[in-house]
Order: sequence, then structure tokens, then C-alpha cells
Amino acid sequence: MRTYNDCIPCFFQQALRAGRIATDDEAAIKKLLDEIGMMLKDIAPESTPTETGMMIYEKVREIIGNTDPFKEVKQRSTREALKIYPSLKRMVQESDDSLLSAIRFAIAGNVIDLGPSGTFDIEKEIAEVLQKRFAIFDYKAFKSHLKRCQSVVYIGDNAGETVFDKLLIEQLKKSVIYVVRRIPVINDATREDAIEAGIDKVATIISSGTSAPGTILHTCSNEFVELLNQSEFILAKGQGNYEALSDIDLRIFFLLKVKCQVIADHLGVRKDDIVLKGANV
Amino acid sequence: MRTYNDCIPCFFQQALRAGRIATDDEAAIKKLLDEIGMMLKDIAPESTPTETGMMIYEKVREIIGNTDPFKEVKQRSTREALKIYPSLKRMVQESDDSLLSAIRFAIAGNVIDLGPSGTFDIEKEIAEVLQKRFAIFDYKAFKSHLKRCQSVVYIGDNAGETVFDKLLIEQLKKSVIYVVRRIPVINDATREDAIEAGIDKVATIISSGTSAPGTILHTCSNEFVELLNQSEFILAKGQGNYEALSDIDLRIFFLLKVKCQVIADHLGVRKDDIVLKGANV
Repeated sequence: MRTYNDCIPCFFQQALRAGRIATDDEAAIKKLLDEIGMMLKDIAPESTPTETGMMIYEKVREIIGNTDPFKEVKQRSTREALKIYPSLKRMVQESDDSLLSAIRFAIAGNVIDLGPSGTFDIEKEIAEVLQKRFAIFDYKAFKSHLKRCQSVVYIGDNAGETVFDKLLIEQLKKSVIYVVRRIPVINDATREDAIEAGIDKVATIISSGTSAPGTILHTCSNEFVELLNQSEFILAKGQGNYEALSDIDLRIFFLLKVKCQVIADHLGVRKDDIVLKGANV
Repeated sequence: MRTYNDCIPCFFQQALRAGRIATDDEAAIKKLLDEIGMMLKDIAPESTPTETGMMIYEKVREIIGNTDPFKEVKQRSTREALKIYPSLKRMVQESDDSLLSAIRFAIAGNVIDLGPSGTFDIEKEIAEVLQKRFAIFDYKAFKSHLKRCQSVVYIGDNAGETVFDKLLIEQLKKSVIYVVRRIPVINDATREDAIEAGIDKVATIISSGTSAPGTILHTCSNEFVELLNQSEFILAKGQGNYEALSDIDLRIFFLLKVKCQVIADHLGVRKDDIVLKGANV
């Protein structure tokens, strides 16, 4: 997906939010915003918003000097999610369609995002997502492809959301490789965050090699790109992964809550819609 | 009022919105945003947000080449407001406190703003403002000062809102000078807009000399600044005028609806609150 002019105010909003979490030095934050302003002209519309996101968070690291400002926020998100995990798991198990319930929870978890929207209320989100109609619902294709596969590559998104991913991984009943970011970027899940969520008990955790808030392939390791090309079934969570992978010629199922108008327009749905979209299926 | 880091994403949002109204050439809009990005480092935190607003709209004129992109929008706003003017006037006249009712309508009209918020629903706004509690309500001082004065300098804000200003001017029952911007900037009222609203029937219209979306004194004409210094009673409408004049050592009554968190914090109130604040009274 390309970058739209509408993304630009949002880049500044995200930089401001990241800066504020990393420091209370407003002069440093102003410098951060100034530098992003100067690099704006170098952002090609053909690049994905995620690539710009990566540049922004590199600037946050460079100027604010904090390599993992979201660490505490991420740990808290994971702890909070783990508290409700047992009751969610029971709900999944008792459901008529456990796989679908787990998919819904995995989307609800996608609200734990400090990128585009910034604030969230997980309990409210769960209640909403459980009864919400999917705007795009390629569940039939999802199930039929899943049945024919032995393994799944599950590309994670945010820390905390990882706990909800675990619920879904358990219902996939396949050999799962769970993909995390190489280094901290916003509150995206790293290996450490995935382990705190207990993902290591249900999947093999690997890093995509990227430091972007999404799986931009040319920033990923060769090993990961090869794995992706050979994989039978790819599931990608969240907007950052959709932005980065929506034009890739691979069969990918995207699972996300739509958090901004640009993505909504790109998908032909509305903001706040939930989507299970199979690409190249 | 100074510029806060929170204002920066909003500058880009406003530039995008102004650009979109002026043209459908997205490449030109990208160039506009790029240029604003480059000038970001030159924005001193000590400058008012209105000064930056002025620079942004200068860029809009320069890059998009349209000197009055909001002309049609402004004319439509005025026409719509004029349609409801007779019924609002009747409500004011039948009210127990006609002055206060007119003040409330003048605030409701302040929602006609394409700057910070972008969208509005005037009928909904009127219904809300009529029963809303003022977060700051210096009405007693307003009335007592008004009683002692012969004339009022009324600094207008947006086109369309001008029609609501007319209702209030009629209730002031003083000799009123109505101040407009020198040239078009966003949908701020110029002389032409004020005349379309019928302000010339109830007040003397003068220009402040500024091309900023607010009354930044060093961009105003000497004549206007002198007038302001000599005036008995100043009433300033809207956020742009509050941003520009809040630190000036003159007795000014500010009448506005609070449209962003930065202004809310500065005033010690909440977003969407309505305010009648007397400075230096």
C-alpha cells in the first residue's frame, strides 16, 4: 500500500505520541518533529506508510536516545491481557465455532495499538468485536486453506495482542511459526514480548529481521523472506502488516481492525470495521 | 498564546484540508506539506499558533495558486446562516435575557470553522449551545463594562458566523466597529463576507490589516492597533483571535467555543466547552 497525503498529519501525531512516551523534554520532541518535517520531502508516495513509520521511530531513537520507550507500556499490556486470558480461553472452548471465536478475540487484541489511534479500552473492544459483523469475511477460504496445510506462519503485531494471538494459535491446531520484529518499535511485539505472552509454549518464535512497525520485505532478513515464500499459510495481523504486505504476490490472510480512513478506503470498508481478508486466495 | 508541540500535527491537518478545498492535485498538496515540513524548524515555540497558520495559508496561496479557495464555502455558510437568522432573531427578542441569548448564538456560530475541527452541524450546535453551561462566564463584568461604554470593537472570526455576530451586535445597542481580515485566509470573514451577512447595516466594518487567521498585532495595520489601544470595549470571537490576543495587555472579552485540547489546557477548561472570558477586566 502506498502513502497518501492523509498519512502525513498522522505521522506527526504518532511521532508526538512516541516522543511523549519516551521523554518529557518538549524541546527534544520539537527537534524530533522538525527532523521529521525535513525528511517529509524524501517520502515517496510509492513507499508504504510503514516505511515512513520506520524512519520516524529511527528518529525517535536517535533524538530521544531511548531505544525502547514503550517497554513498560508493552509489559503492562501483556500482564493485563494475561489476566483475562483464562476466561477468554474458556469462552473460546465453549463456543459453537471455537476457531471463529478465537479469530474475533485476535482482532479485539489488535486494538492494543499505540500507533494510529493511541488509546484503547480492551474490555469494551472485546464486547464489541464479539458481536460485530465482519466488513470482509473470507472465513470459508480461510478454513478450507487451513485444512490443507500442515503449518502456519503467523505474523504478529503488538505486545499484549500477542496473548490474544495465543488463543487463535491454539485453535489453528497446526505447527505455527510466530513472527516478531527484530528490535523494539512502538509497542510492536519482539521475541521478549512474545515469550512473556507465552507464545513460546504454542509456536516457534522467529524474527522477521525488521525494525519497521510492519513487515516491509526489503527490511527483513533473507531467511525470513525465503520462509515466507515457501510457507503454505500466512496470517498477518494488524494495519502495519497490511500496509507492508497488501501488494505482495503471496497468499496471505489479513486479520485486522481498521483504525484509519486511509486503510478503510484502501480496503473499501469503514473505519472501525473488522476484516478477515484473504489476498491471492 | 505560544505554539505547543501538539499544534504541529494539527498544522498539517489544516494544510491538508485547505489544500484539498483548493485543488484536487494531490502532488501539489504533497509539495505543500513538504514545504510546511521544511519550515517547521523555523517555527519558534514563542510564536502564536495563528502566526504559523498565517505561514501555512501563505504557502497554500503560493503553491496551489488559488488566492481564495474557501470563497464558495464561505458564501454557502453565509447563505445558510441567513436562512435561519429571522427565527434566531425572534428567539433572541422573546428571550428573558436577550443579550445572553445573542451571546449564546454568537458562540454557536463560532462552530462554522474550517480550521481546527473541519466539520460542523450548525443546527445541532445551536441546540447544544443554548442549554450548555459556560466553563468560564464573565457575563457580569461583560455587562457592567458594556454599560459604561459608548462603542464596541467587535473582532470577527469566520464567514457565516458573521450572521450570528449580527444578532449579538444588535443586542449590544452601542456604536460597533466590526473587524475583518484584510485578505481571504481559510474561511475567515473579509469585508465582502461581512457585507453579505448584513453587518454593514449594524456596524462600521474595518479591516485589521492582517492576512493571518487571527489578529496578530504585528501583522495588523498601525491604524487598527491604534484603534484597539484607544477602544473602550473589545470583543474577540473564536480561537484564532484568542491565540493571537490572549497575552496582550488590553481589556478584551473573548467569546469562543473551545475546539482543541491545547486551547482547553491554556484556558483551564475542556474541549467543546463554551467560554466568555474577560481578560484584564
